[in-house]
Amino acid sequence: MEADILIQDGILIPMDASSGVIANGYVAITGDRIGAVGSGKPSIKAKKVISAQNGVILPGLINTHSHQTMMRGVCEDLPLMDWLEKICFPIDSSLQAADIRASSLMCQAEMLLGGTTTFVDLYRYPQVAAEVAEQTGIRAVIASQVIDHPAGTGETYDDNLKFVQDWLSRGKGRIRPWFGVHAPYSNNIETYRAAVRAAKEYGVGVHTHLCETKSEVEQVQAIRGCSPIAWLARENALSNRMLAAHCVHIDQEDIKIMRDAGVKVAYNPSSNMKLASGVAPVTDMLAAGLTVGLATDSNLSNNNLDLFEEMRIGAMLQKLITLDASALPATEVLKMATIYGAECLGLEDEIGSLEVGKKADVIIVDLNRPHMWPRFTGEVNNVIANLVYSANAADVRTTIVDGRLLVDQGRLSDLDLDTAFVEVQAAAHDLYRRAQVKMS
Amino acid sequence: MEADILIQDGILIPMDASSGVIANGYVAITGDRIGAVGSGKPSIKAKKVISAQNGVILPGLINTHSHQTMMRGVCEDLPLMDWLEKICFPIDSSLQAADIRASSLMCQAEMLLGGTTTFVDLYRYPQVAAEVAEQTGIRAVIASQVIDHPAGTGETYDDNLKFVQDWLSRGKGRIRPWFGVHAPYSNNIETYRAAVRAAKEYGVGVHTHLCETKSEVEQVQAIRGCSPIAWLARENALSNRMLAAHCVHIDQEDIKIMRDAGVKVAYNPSSNMKLASGVAPVTDMLAAGLTVGLATDSNLSNNNLDLFEEMRIGAMLQKLITLDASALPATEVLKMATIYGAECLGLEDEIGSLEVGKKADVIIVDLNRPHMWPRFTGEVNNVIANLVYSANAADVRTTIVDGRLLVDQGRLSDLDLDTAFVEVQAAAHDLYRRAQVKMS
Repeated sequence: MEADILIQDGILIPMDASSGVIANGYVAITGDRIGAVGSGKPSIKAKKVISAQNGVILPGLINTHSHQTMMRGVCEDLPLMDWLEKICFPIDSSLQAADIRASSLMCQAEMLLGGTTTFVDLYRYPQVAAEVAEQTGIRAVIASQVIDHPAGTGETYDDNLKFVQDWLSRGKGRIRPWFGVHAPYSNNIETYRAAVRAAKEYGVGVHTHLCETKSEVEQVQAIRGCSPIAWLARENALSNRMLAAHCVHIDQEDIKIMRDAGVKVAYNPSSNMKLASGVAPVTDMLAAGLTVGLATDSNLSNNNLDLFEEMRIGAMLQKLITLDASALPATEVLKMATIYGAECLGLEDEIGSLEVGKKADVIIVDLNRPHMWPRFTGEVNNVIANLVYSANAADVRTTIVDGRLLVDQGRLSDLDLDTAFVEVQAAAHDLYRRAQVKMS
Repeated sequence: MEADILIQDGILIPMDASSGVIANGYVAITGDRIGAVGSGKPSIKAKKVISAQNGVILPGLINTHSHQTMMRGVCEDLPLMDWLEKICFPIDSSLQAADIRASSLMCQAEMLLGGTTTFVDLYRYPQVAAEVAEQTGIRAVIASQVIDHPAGTGETYDDNLKFVQDWLSRGKGRIRPWFGVHAPYSNNIETYRAAVRAAKEYGVGVHTHLCETKSEVEQVQAIRGCSPIAWLARENALSNRMLAAHCVHIDQEDIKIMRDAGVKVAYNPSSNMKLASGVAPVTDMLAAGLTVGLATDSNLSNNNLDLFEEMRIGAMLQKLITLDASALPATEVLKMATIYGAECLGLEDEIGSLEVGKKADVIIVDLNRPHMWPRFTGEVNNVIANLVYSANAADVRTTIVDGRLLVDQGRLSDLDLDTAFVEVQAAAHDLYRRAQVKMS
């Protein structure tokens, strides 16, 4: 067999149905696909051989909810409503396409360096975020954040529809345009229904926020007489193509409704902690058979896009709220960041595990760091635990998307970061200046 | 003025009483002390000049509670009692001095690489941990973990006393021997009293666990008729030289007792989450005037020694449990990791801030990473927020302790990590083999 890239001599965790850890494994890539996966020394000729010695070969991580924002760290530690009104709304409504270009480049660079090969974006100027993804090489699901509320930022359902039509073929399968609906408290039911209907027609998905805060749930409850999820179900606005972010303030009945409708969930532990929103009942959701992926949310409420840190915090948070140290074990949270994430996007046949025929989205995590020793790879095995509880984004040394080597030895292969830093700095200062006039 | 090392052209956060951020600052070091701190270009001749361009100059971080353990990631996700009985106790009681040598070297290397310049250790073979600190150059407070309970690991108060006597001068002020008492549920009151008395006599401190889990508090309550803290107070076993780790299950009366006695607290957010212990009421403690430092606990319950991650999680966790996004703001948690940490150790005149005359424990954090952009250093300022919410240990590029450059460009100057990796791997596998016979 011949391959373009052969990764060998690493600990291999394919995240396939076997859930196994192979002490010495390899992955061969031909074009944009995985051609072979196995253990030991393969007899494969490859144009490029990458040693994964002292490293773990993993499928690329999948970030199921984010916004490509820019103003991290500004106006921190405010109560949620102050934060939204004083900083988020003025900034969001002042955004121009050039800002999204600068911030998307920075966010995608950060994600690639940290081993995230696929992300979901819900924000403004989706065509610009998509163009940046064309450039960076990352895999992306991009939706417009449509808000019907008069305080919204301008994107309409019709804009979103045009974006989907424009990018369905242009995205070449790597960049997938989706429908985006902000939330039940800020959108009309017609927008949800139209998005769900069109998503089916175009074979794409619908991304939305759902039940993030107590107050929004109470608000909908007061108007609709039932929970936001029950309301969407009653109005035929749920779908198995829907990915709902947060789902913090939900009950067993909501979980049942979501499961019956096939709605997928993006769990955002850090953001929900930092904004004091609460904790999503992830162990209950998983027990009920829901598909739950992992997500960072935006760098305004996280404030980084590190899915390794998110795995760690996501698992620890479930242990804390269930008062059970065995809740959401490491293997399960690693699935959330990989194969369950793929299922959230309806892409489980393409990504989320290292299996022959799937897209070649592969990362190598370096183990030769003091915080990743010692190493047990036999019957006692601490490799997955170390990835989930000890590692962080900076431990990633290789990132491959669609068979392209985008991060090599911890550095971006094609992107000029120094120029990007200057651009994001200028854009952020200019945006702040423009937004300031809207701030109280 | 002449200096040995001059660090310049960086954003300077001295953590002194001004709480300021200096957009372009410098620190000059002569011998083991800080000779000058200021803004702009100093007229100082130095043997070595370090550029802090695109970086933040900070005092070294202080980890107020840890154990220099080795078996990270093994037997994870177990209920607490299973974890303690199946893995911790068999391993702790099988430890030999050579194991502590290997694990201490790995822990200290990890901490130095991550910008921690001072740590508190409570574990076995303290003299070995101290010898390793002599070698690595890190600043250390080391206590024996004395357990009176028959299931304890062997260290006695008399051993601890001898360790304090041996290392009081040998430590040269950089390595400080302390008394260590495991916990109220595993120790006799006589041990607490003896340690408190001797700590005063020798001018050192006493480190202990306090109210980590609900069950241990209930156990002491049942036997003593009051909370562990009230019991220690009643028995004259509290002291302003005492540093108590955890303090999760305490009430307002306990807080008042600790404040009146001058007891300091080490907050371990990750460990308390991961072991499902609960959340320490840190905002209440700070409001009551208690001194609270930050800590990682051991790499068995964390599973890394990254104080940047701990700042982030520590702040987010307080926001979550108070349901207030403004709780424990970034500046306050950065103080916990620096100057409050120094106060916990009674070393606030020596370390914890960058001020003339203090020990030269200085770090530089790299900002030239996608997750640390953009940057606002004027009236709007996101530098502290980015350090707390966005950074991690891998962003540290320089670590200086006692005026010695121990980490340069993200690499340990003097330690041969490759040899240390081989040693810790061999030691861990051998320890596991020995401990296995004790495991059920």
